Amino acid sequence: MALIVQKFGGSSVANAERVMNVARIVTDTYKAGNDVIVVVSAQGDTTDDLIAKALEINEKPSRREMDMLLCSGEQISIALLAMAIEKLGYPVVSLLGWQAGFNTNSTYGSARIKKIRTERLKNEVGNKKIVVVAGFQGICKYDDMTTLGRGGSDSSAVAIAAAMHADRCQIFTDVEGVYTADPRKVPNAQKLKEITYDEMLELATLGAQVLNNRSVEIAKKYNVELEVLSSLTRAEGTIVKEVTDMEKMYIRGVTKDTNVTRISVMKVPDVPGIAFKLFSKLASKNIVVDIILQSIGRDGTKDITFTVSKDNTDEAMTLLENYDLLKDSTISCDTNVAKISVVGAGMESHPGCAATMFEALYGVDVNIQMISTSEIKISVLIDLKDADRAVSAVHAAFFPEAD
Amino acid sequence: MALIVQKFGGSSVANAERVMNVARIVTDTYKAGNDVIVVVSAQGDTTDDLIAKALEINEKPSRREMDMLLCSGEQISIALLAMAIEKLGYPVVSLLGWQAGFNTNSTYGSARIKKIRTERLKNEVGNKKIVVVAGFQGICKYDDMTTLGRGGSDSSAVAIAAAMHADRCQIFTDVEGVYTADPRKVPNAQKLKEITYDEMLELATLGAQVLNNRSVEIAKKYNVELEVLSSLTRAEGTIVKEVTDMEKMYIRGVTKDTNVTRISVMKVPDVPGIAFKLFSKLASKNIVVDIILQSIGRDGTKDITFTVSKDNTDEAMTLLENYDLLKDSTISCDTNVAKISVVGAGMESHPGCAATMFEALYGVDVNIQMISTSEIKISVLIDLKDADRAVSAVHAAFFPEAD
Repeated sequence: MALIVQKFGGSSVANAERVMNVARIVTDTYKAGNDVIVVVSAQGDTTDDLIAKALEINEKPSRREMDMLLCSGEQISIALLAMAIEKLGYPVVSLLGWQAGFNTNSTYGSARIKKIRTERLKNEVGNKKIVVVAGFQGICKYDDMTTLGRGGSDSSAVAIAAAMHADRCQIFTDVEGVYTADPRKVPNAQKLKEITYDEMLELATLGAQVLNNRSVEIAKKYNVELEVLSSLTRAEGTIVKEVTDMEKMYIRGVTKDTNVTRISVMKVPDVPGIAFKLFSKLASKNIVVDIILQSIGRDGTKDITFTVSKDNTDEAMTLLENYDLLKDSTISCDTNVAKISVVGAGMESHPGCAATMFEALYGVDVNIQMISTSEIKISVLIDLKDADRAVSAVHAAFFPEAD
Repeated sequence: MALIVQKFGGSSVANAERVMNVARIVTDTYKAGNDVIVVVSAQGDTTDDLIAKALEINEKPSRREMDMLLCSGEQISIALLAMAIEKLGYPVVSLLGWQAGFNTNSTYGSARIKKIRTERLKNEVGNKKIVVVAGFQGICKYDDMTTLGRGGSDSSAVAIAAAMHADRCQIFTDVEGVYTADPRKVPNAQKLKEITYDEMLELATLGAQVLNNRSVEIAKKYNVELEVLSSLTRAEGTIVKEVTDMEKMYIRGVTKDTNVTRISVMKVPDVPGIAFKLFSKLASKNIVVDIILQSIGRDGTKDITFTVSKDNTDEAMTLLENYDLLKDSTISCDTNVAKISVVGAGMESHPGCAATMFEALYGVDVNIQMISTSEIKISVLIDLKDADRAVSAVHAAFFPEAD
């Protein structure tokens, strides 16, 4: 007998039929002799619909009231899922974030979980109830509703698994697991049996969109074994854990991230500390800079090129254009770019990795604008229009057996 | 400076425009120097929509989960109203039932308010915030969400007014106040300036549907001055209080109730205790009997006729048909009936009241099936098809100046 935490996203509970499907997965797990805690998100587009309702009334509502509003979404889905489980004849109780003990700080809209008071969860599980918990939400010290921000339900599930010392945390999505590339774009993408936390983090950051990043960080910190799997097919998913069998596959996947803008600052005065000043300016506004390329100085100036996420473009540009240190520089940006990456912890011991990637891109005539590498990934910035072609080519180069 | 509690029903906050309208009423009251606590119901058809969603999944969901589901409706409307008040530039905070201190018993679906812990309400009002409270809901000793049942938002508002010693509790509806008859049916119906709690209770029971009965009972018990008024016209409404100027008008109104069934039991054995046995049988199933008529005994039997509400018809009939004491009786029911009543505390001192009513009915050829009287009302049961004609005629007889 084990304690299993299962998390279902909004699309998994979007309508009555899907709610019943989730109820069957949950009760099958329970029937097999396990204790089960289920974490659910709001149904389908509920959160977006609520936000639209709010903006119709006030284009800048306070975050506190926005959290009050949004928390209703998960409240609806936990009640409906509990009713579905009742319908199948199993003991069940639904709990809101605060009832399940989620204490957060009071950063409304993107609150951090501080602690989970597990008394009630333990009681309900002890009473052999299936416990359905509202994801994405908690309560702060003022007794006010808070939300964890988008993707927060994944964090809720992993945090419960950690606090309750669950044997496994299953994250159900609409894909069957973690793939070597986006299976909708690359037909030969392969499902991974296992992946490490670090690899998963790189993949998530790079736009694989399977698991919320914070949830992987929590899982890594508390060593919670995660499984990513589909609520529709019930096939075996991908296990995310600390160490995996390295097997022969040293690359875990190829990802594409289009939420990226390239900003170029030409003719920056070539004096010490200039990069520091420029990037602290951006950091002061919480603008995260990714790949950075700096040219060798010439004629007393140099060029600095870097990438930011697309939604930071305007703020970054305004900041730089009004920075007196750059008054003689030329600043430009390009949003028609994409970042293609290969990720894998086995990369270090395979020196030919970068060469394989670059050769594949050359083979399909894709020009590389920028390059960035870490111990477990290689990223290149290319023209947006080449992105899908580039992913296919790179994937085929690393996974020839799949083609 | 006064403390005013204002309550707005679902239709008053049905869309963004109406929410803004409510926000303007609330902030105008606040601007005039008052402290304001606002109680709101779920928007428009939200509650019905949620119930439909539940029944699609489970036709017999537990009441606990139903309450969890339904509480989300008011959560949405308080957040939206708070955002609208923010938009107008006033300090505001929204509170769920439990945050506002509503402790109830654990009769899910129709919980009773046990106590209001007013600490937070007092703090927020003390900080000069407009406080928006979710009506209809509370929390029980198990820390579970509860609802007060349909119309519960009126009770929430009156209970807050009582607990906070508010100067007035304003119930905003889609009519301008309490009328001498349904203004949609009787064009000459007049708005009352004042009415007593007892009269209001009789009117509510008789189907006037302006104020929830329990809320009037709470108001009477704690002597909360109520005002019924419209959220659309902002005209002066009707004040409900303990004693009113009796003026010359001794009848407060004429009502029609079509949610009524007449059940006749013919040839009941004429033995002592038979009425007691019959009606305790019905009471044991929580079936409320209204008008009762019993014939003089003849040939060792008598006839008993009484009315129940329409939704109790089937249960009452089944109960009686299977009651062995009545195995030789003939039991029949008629749902094509309506109850017409005149209500007024001044009635006692005006002996001609019943005569005026009966004469008016006779004048338009309406046959009276049953009669029932109390100190402040006279009710008659008539054929359903005569109902509207009867109301008009009786209203014209008592309020000739209006015609």
